[in-house]
Amino acid sequence: MKIGILGLGLIGGSLGFDLRSQGHEVLGVSRRESTCQKAIALGSVDRAEVDLSLFATADIVFICTPIALIVPQIQQLIEHLSAATIITDVGSVKAPIVNAIAPLWENFVGGHPMAGTADSGIEAAQRHLFVDRPYVLTPINTTPPQATAVVEEIVRSLGSKIYHCQPEQHDRAVSWISHLPVMVSASLIAACMGETDPAVLQLAQNLASSGFRDTSRVGGGNPELGVMMAQFNQQALLSSLQQYRYQLDQVIDLIEQENWTALEAKLQSTQKARPEFVE
Amino acid sequence: MKIGILGLGLIGGSLGFDLRSQGHEVLGVSRRESTCQKAIALGSVDRAEVDLSLFATADIVFICTPIALIVPQIQQLIEHLSAATIITDVGSVKAPIVNAIAPLWENFVGGHPMAGTADSGIEAAQRHLFVDRPYVLTPINTTPPQATAVVEEIVRSLGSKIYHCQPEQHDRAVSWISHLPVMVSASLIAACMGETDPAVLQLAQNLASSGFRDTSRVGGGNPELGVMMAQFNQQALLSSLQQYRYQLDQVIDLIEQENWTALEAKLQSTQKARPEFVE
Repeated sequence: MKIGILGLGLIGGSLGFDLRSQGHEVLGVSRRESTCQKAIALGSVDRAEVDLSLFATADIVFICTPIALIVPQIQQLIEHLSAATIITDVGSVKAPIVNAIAPLWENFVGGHPMAGTADSGIEAAQRHLFVDRPYVLTPINTTPPQATAVVEEIVRSLGSKIYHCQPEQHDRAVSWISHLPVMVSASLIAACMGETDPAVLQLAQNLASSGFRDTSRVGGGNPELGVMMAQFNQQALLSSLQQYRYQLDQVIDLIEQENWTALEAKLQSTQKARPEFVE
Repeated sequence: MKIGILGLGLIGGSLGFDLRSQGHEVLGVSRRESTCQKAIALGSVDRAEVDLSLFATADIVFICTPIALIVPQIQQLIEHLSAATIITDVGSVKAPIVNAIAPLWENFVGGHPMAGTADSGIEAAQRHLFVDRPYVLTPINTTPPQATAVVEEIVRSLGSKIYHCQPEQHDRAVSWISHLPVMVSASLIAACMGETDPAVLQLAQNLASSGFRDTSRVGGGNPELGVMMAQFNQQALLSSLQQYRYQLDQVIDLIEQENWTALEAKLQSTQKARPEFVE
């Protein structure tokens, strides 16, 4: 197949490596000529240009730009495509994107590969990034099954674990396990920063160890990414935050009331539930 | 010196290894005869018995029992000691212990080695456990400087990083970096467990990755330890929880108000502050 990749960063560049190695012809478009040249030199794409018209004959185009650019870029892109071309995206929030694109382009399948590294950019792109990682597809009622099948076949060839769900279900799931933890963790750091006795603050900094390190990690991450999560998944995240606040208030109440039996029961339930999510 | 260790678990057993290797005579007391035998067989102590009278001629006794037993055990222990014997403990909360023991025993120095593993018991004891780990000492006005000096010399020989502070300062510092994270993290798991759509819950469990893994780790830990933290450090933990709740409410407000500029500023401040605690 002739596969287009719009946005040659970590995800787009890594897709290019794997798809080329399977014999597909991979075309890349980046806003920067220098990125196009790097992607070609690294072997991530066969050809790359700054102009969307490169995709005119593509069978499928992966949109791998930052999330805020996905809808505007697709709006420009579709002027260059034939109606048979399938578009899919890799945005980490799905409902706003699917809701915006579905009326504009029938052959659109929302997607979210849950693979990433701490690094970004074409230099960080790597082969086999998606192996054994979840890749969520969010076709809706109006999505042609054939389009979904084509995207799924490509995704399967990457070695990913494929999940299908409604866009809104995806957004609620990632609000729980990805976006809520960022806000929970950032609030922890912010609270500790608020210690007013400099000696206690210094001591806390000296004593902080693996427990604090792990719990604070995602709250000390990329601020722009955190804002994007909140911006694009606002409703699901607010709903998760309200549930979280309710749980936190329960914990505070139990400690205030010295109800150690109920607190132990709660900590037993969280100890038991965690392995259903990880490990 | 003749050094007593009351409680032959991970901490007590590990202390024994290091102190014996420095030529001290190490005496152990455990409630269980089988633990005494294991400690001798492993080489953690020179002698071990179930009776506190073993410590009658000790120069110093380390209290390494679970935190709830520290005060009651010291109350029994002091009947067997000469007034010159120094007592120190390894409890993870200091003010309630120091406040209870100081009126009973002049030569008492509160301590807290911040070393641990996921395992417990004499079988988990290991050499060099305290090397490069923080070890907090909390002498108060009435503590004889000579007693503090003796404890400090021993702790230094373990290779620990020594910090001195008031018991209350210790308890506030550990509430920030150790006890608060447990409650924050447990509340995250509890909130996710509350998802009412089984499909979304299942998807969240499938998609959970390193971010959720790290943020939820300490909230999925030993429930009894979590309750002990809350029980013995209740006031400091509640104060930290209230500060945390205030920060969380601020984050919720910013997202509700779509104040992305302020949210980004907050996430920038937490990103900047985290390295002052870890790494």
